Amino acid sequence: MHKELQRAEKIISRINELASISEVGDGITRRYGTEAFLEGANKVLQWMREAGLQVRIDHIGNVRGVWKADDPAAKTLVIASHIDTVQHAGRWDGPLGVLTGLDLLENVIQSEKKLPFHIELVAFCDEEGVRFHTTYLGSKVVAGSFDRELLHCKDGEGISLEEAIHTIGGDAAKLEEDAIAPGDWLGYFEIHIEQGPVLYERKIPAALVKAIAGQVRAQVVFKGVAGHAGTVPMDLRNDGLCGAAEFILGSEKLAFESRHELVATVGKLQIRNPASNVIPGEVACSVDIRSADEQVLSRSHEKIRELSEQIGKRRGLGVEWKVLQVSLPVVCDARMNGLLAQAITDAGYESLGLVSGAGHDAVPIAAVAPVAMLFVRCFKGISHHPLEDVETEDIAAVIAVSDNFIHQLTLSWKYQH
Amino acid sequence: MHKELQRAEKIISRINELASISEVGDGITRRYGTEAFLEGANKVLQWMREAGLQVRIDHIGNVRGVWKADDPAAKTLVIASHIDTVQHAGRWDGPLGVLTGLDLLENVIQSEKKLPFHIELVAFCDEEGVRFHTTYLGSKVVAGSFDRELLHCKDGEGISLEEAIHTIGGDAAKLEEDAIAPGDWLGYFEIHIEQGPVLYERKIPAALVKAIAGQVRAQVVFKGVAGHAGTVPMDLRNDGLCGAAEFILGSEKLAFESRHELVATVGKLQIRNPASNVIPGEVACSVDIRSADEQVLSRSHEKIRELSEQIGKRRGLGVEWKVLQVSLPVVCDARMNGLLAQAITDAGYESLGLVSGAGHDAVPIAAVAPVAMLFVRCFKGISHHPLEDVETEDIAAVIAVSDNFIHQLTLSWKYQH
Repeated sequence: MHKELQRAEKIISRINELASISEVGDGITRRYGTEAFLEGANKVLQWMREAGLQVRIDHIGNVRGVWKADDPAAKTLVIASHIDTVQHAGRWDGPLGVLTGLDLLENVIQSEKKLPFHIELVAFCDEEGVRFHTTYLGSKVVAGSFDRELLHCKDGEGISLEEAIHTIGGDAAKLEEDAIAPGDWLGYFEIHIEQGPVLYERKIPAALVKAIAGQVRAQVVFKGVAGHAGTVPMDLRNDGLCGAAEFILGSEKLAFESRHELVATVGKLQIRNPASNVIPGEVACSVDIRSADEQVLSRSHEKIRELSEQIGKRRGLGVEWKVLQVSLPVVCDARMNGLLAQAITDAGYESLGLVSGAGHDAVPIAAVAPVAMLFVRCFKGISHHPLEDVETEDIAAVIAVSDNFIHQLTLSWKYQH
Repeated sequence: MHKELQRAEKIISRINELASISEVGDGITRRYGTEAFLEGANKVLQWMREAGLQVRIDHIGNVRGVWKADDPAAKTLVIASHIDTVQHAGRWDGPLGVLTGLDLLENVIQSEKKLPFHIELVAFCDEEGVRFHTTYLGSKVVAGSFDRELLHCKDGEGISLEEAIHTIGGDAAKLEEDAIAPGDWLGYFEIHIEQGPVLYERKIPAALVKAIAGQVRAQVVFKGVAGHAGTVPMDLRNDGLCGAAEFILGSEKLAFESRHELVATVGKLQIRNPASNVIPGEVACSVDIRSADEQVLSRSHEKIRELSEQIGKRRGLGVEWKVLQVSLPVVCDARMNGLLAQAITDAGYESLGLVSGAGHDAVPIAAVAPVAMLFVRCFKGISHHPLEDVETEDIAAVIAVSDNFIHQLTLSWKYQH
């Protein structure tokens, strides 16, 4: 592991250098299209160039570096993650995948191995979607599924996405030219911190991702009758908050019973005109339901919706259910995952398959290419927070696994052709 | 009932006239010490004078009118309620008691009956406490328990209570002179809308008040661990909102089991940094517990606090419990209530004893005099709202009961002396 540890140190030093570039002095914030974002993108571009890749920043702002195979008609393996951040972010979410990818390519180049496919390293420009309240701007362009309507989205200061693209030197008219054609993909590989506690709890450095969960986002409103907290007896109340409380616990119980394939969360709760001496009338809750299994997702959504209605009936509360968003699960490619499992085992680790509860750039890419992801253990599962952390040893493990994976892909390609 | 209905109509016409005096054009708002308040007070003063009472506005702003018995050393029965309002109030909360009291005195005067006690009608100036976030300013002065520290309280515009007293023509140095000495009280009688749904549900026009509930106001904070709604499995969560939900339902259940002597309400709930895709970490709830029985109140407070700790232990949540306010129950005078029950029965109504979950001016008075209250049915129990309403027939019933009550007090006095 000595060599891998040295490579890990170099990756971390680059991650730290990138983390020093921020919109704000106190913490890490690099939202899409900002000056700090552009400075970070140019830093990554420079590193890619120094490694010997053919580099460019595409029109939407993705940093892209290609290492060509001898055969110009070869397919392309994309190794990618993102370099935009949430506000007051950690340093690992995104950059770990990009800079470990860069290390993998540097290793390929130094080893002078001949590959039967091109490798393109991509640092996506906007996975978090913080500035325009969008998702996957960069990877949608690469997948060829960018919706031009998005160009009219405006940020908090009224600047449109189209204007932001222009500001960073892109040409919105040419976004389609930056897509990789469906027939040109070998596959997609992304290394990313887990952003959850499973690997930390199970003491495993890394694991492959079986699927990215689908999600239903809804809002439920319980409409009771507000009243004086002192004068309305318990048996004459229609307390909207008690209804919501029953709903929160019922959803939790239902998800707990299917905890290996389902999570459900009430993250927001608002009482209308709240006061300590007033019985809550109207109470609105957010509902977030996720599963990697499409049937489990839709069945659980239905059950949780029914639960709200049963509570409403029993308590004499009006109930309104509004679905805000549905995204279907994405299943990672079985063949690529077979090779990744082999790579993990060959590196001496237990091979485990996780479901990603968070979305990733692999979601839009999966529509045009086989995708695989490798999750890396992070400290206590903490993410989107300055405490986000990854151990050097775990990065070394990821390097060993990923070297193996590229080797497996090469073997597999040769065997097939 | 014909005569009582006519008297009720006159009371309502005065209530409507008083309701037309407001700080704002749209709705009824007469906070203590405002111009609208003073205009309303002068209107009540004028009505009292026209009725033949010896009138004055005292230093804090209470409107007071005395009808003297022949014996100058006689004790005083105070009939009272308040004429200040909450913001966007109903028209009945307070004025009903003052103007029905005026009608009772007019009836006594017209009937030329000799009474063995003085009657003083008081329109208290500040029961709601909206302007200075205080309670019972007017009745504390009459009870002789006004705390001079209150003079430094400031309203939203930085005006102190002392300045407000000066503005309405009072002299803060002389507040103590306006107290009725403990030995001079015969008793205290207040007519007030129920502000709850019990009489409305039970179809009874009026009922005596057995006691005014004591109250514990507390805040409980559940401290869990915030996390990503997609990536943290159900069995690795410490969800503060789920803890709060369990607490809300547990408190409801506990109060429901003692529903004839206890109410408990969570009226406010705040999630720290709420987001639909984030598992709630820290959640704060208000807790309002009320009972007319001091032991039930303190035992229930203890049980509900213990409940929060049990939930915290089971769920791995930190729990903080902070008591914000404790007020002890006030028991109405048994002898006066005996006479009031007789008065109700004599008027042909079922005699029922209620607990007041809301506070009233009777609370500070109870420290120096025997108190009795008569609650009047209001539409659906709605109060502190423009929809607050009382039926003319119910006011007629209250007039019949109250005439009887004064008669009973007279008989009782004669019997005793």
